[in-house]
Amino acid sequence: MALKVRTAKDLAKLIDYTLLKPEATKKEISKLCQEAKRYGFASVFVNPCYVKLASRLLKNSEVKVGTVVGFPLGANTFSTKAFEAREAIKLGASEIDMVINVGFLKSADLKLVQQDIEEVAKVVRQMGDKADKNIVFKVIIETCFLNQEEKVKAAQLAEKAGAEFVKTSTGFGTAGANLNDVKLLRKHLSDKVKIKASGGIRTFEQALDMLKAGADRIGTSSGVMIIKEAQKKLKAEAKRAEALEELNNG
Amino acid sequence: MALKVRTAKDLAKLIDYTLLKPEATKKEISKLCQEAKRYGFASVFVNPCYVKLASRLLKNSEVKVGTVVGFPLGANTFSTKAFEAREAIKLGASEIDMVINVGFLKSADLKLVQQDIEEVAKVVRQMGDKADKNIVFKVIIETCFLNQEEKVKAAQLAEKAGAEFVKTSTGFGTAGANLNDVKLLRKHLSDKVKIKASGGIRTFEQALDMLKAGADRIGTSSGVMIIKEAQKKLKAEAKRAEALEELNNG
Repeated sequence: MALKVRTAKDLAKLIDYTLLKPEATKKEISKLCQEAKRYGFASVFVNPCYVKLASRLLKNSEVKVGTVVGFPLGANTFSTKAFEAREAIKLGASEIDMVINVGFLKSADLKLVQQDIEEVAKVVRQMGDKADKNIVFKVIIETCFLNQEEKVKAAQLAEKAGAEFVKTSTGFGTAGANLNDVKLLRKHLSDKVKIKASGGIRTFEQALDMLKAGADRIGTSSGVMIIKEAQKKLKAEAKRAEALEELNNG
Repeated sequence: MALKVRTAKDLAKLIDYTLLKPEATKKEISKLCQEAKRYGFASVFVNPCYVKLASRLLKNSEVKVGTVVGFPLGANTFSTKAFEAREAIKLGASEIDMVINVGFLKSADLKLVQQDIEEVAKVVRQMGDKADKNIVFKVIIETCFLNQEEKVKAAQLAEKAGAEFVKTSTGFGTAGANLNDVKLLRKHLSDKVKIKASGGIRTFEQALDMLKAGADRIGTSSGVMIIKEAQKKLKAEAKRAEALEELNNG
């Protein structure tokens, strides 16, 4: 994992606080942004139609705005995905999580899977260079639809295209992140590529387990709940450690 | 309903035969197209990445190629949806089913909901005029997330934007089509606007009930199963009618 989690604040820095359900209102997006500032999450993740709003609300804060491309099916054309990424960055997104073309992967057409990722990667690089700013590029491989070999292949294609992260899941598939997948990805990716675990992560214990298994970032809509749990548990642990020290010194 | 269903063939003409799951392979799309020709479905519905393939396979057939825009969340920007629609038509789609921006509707920002639909409607009209061909435009209101008032409002905005169909569901939400929604839409739309029922329709009886409630088109991935059932049941009915006539005449 990227850094040691000693406090709830450390943990918040590893969380992409996410609200991607289609029925999310402007009010809910505003609340998401407020909470992200308050708890110090790494970013908020919102659908493209809310990038402009979130960017305005998070201006002058440390919280980044991330969005999704080709989400959640990944079955758009290359150029639609590229267009969507370009526009999102223009509107203020500085993290782009794209979904691979799962159907092409299941068709064993790796060339097309690669091209799909690279067209978006190119846009992300170009736009980043233009704005002299690092745009974080994550590739969602949607593990729930893939066998082991496909998971590894997809992750390697993402690395080859220069992805900063491989992300397990959209949260809209048949299953979310699991520890085995995180371990598998960690085993097959170089140290340059980080892992984002997402989909179904709702508790502090789950988040911690994912980080221990090799995840560097957690995508979750339960960010606040997780941090509140972390605050409680880490405080109790600190107290226990203190008590133990007193006892030993006393 | 649009026309009387006397034979299984009549029914097939009212079905959009659909394969939108993200893991669909090229092989499965080819099978879909073959079956659509064989059974005489109105169209196939595939994700944008497969429009080119389906258009090639269905060239010189009566089966149309339809695709989806902003699918299934509807939470893209206006211009991404417009871009996606334009590209799909260029690649051969002659039916476009777009998802409304559910979040803007839940935020009660009807102006934005309207603008979203109209930007795509405009592209569809322009591209149709250019090719001198009618592109069918359907608006998916994703009823499962809406209350009664929102359903009616969304349908009316779709009609105002010139939609040829209002469609109940994506099939990826929390629920699909139901009879009450079809009746509600029929009640509040003018005769110019048709209704496409979709999501969870898997049997002949369900399809028939939807048509009786006012649907004009059925979107389903179970098209072949439905038609096989229809063939069996309608044949049995015809036999019964024949036997009855013989009895009466005898």
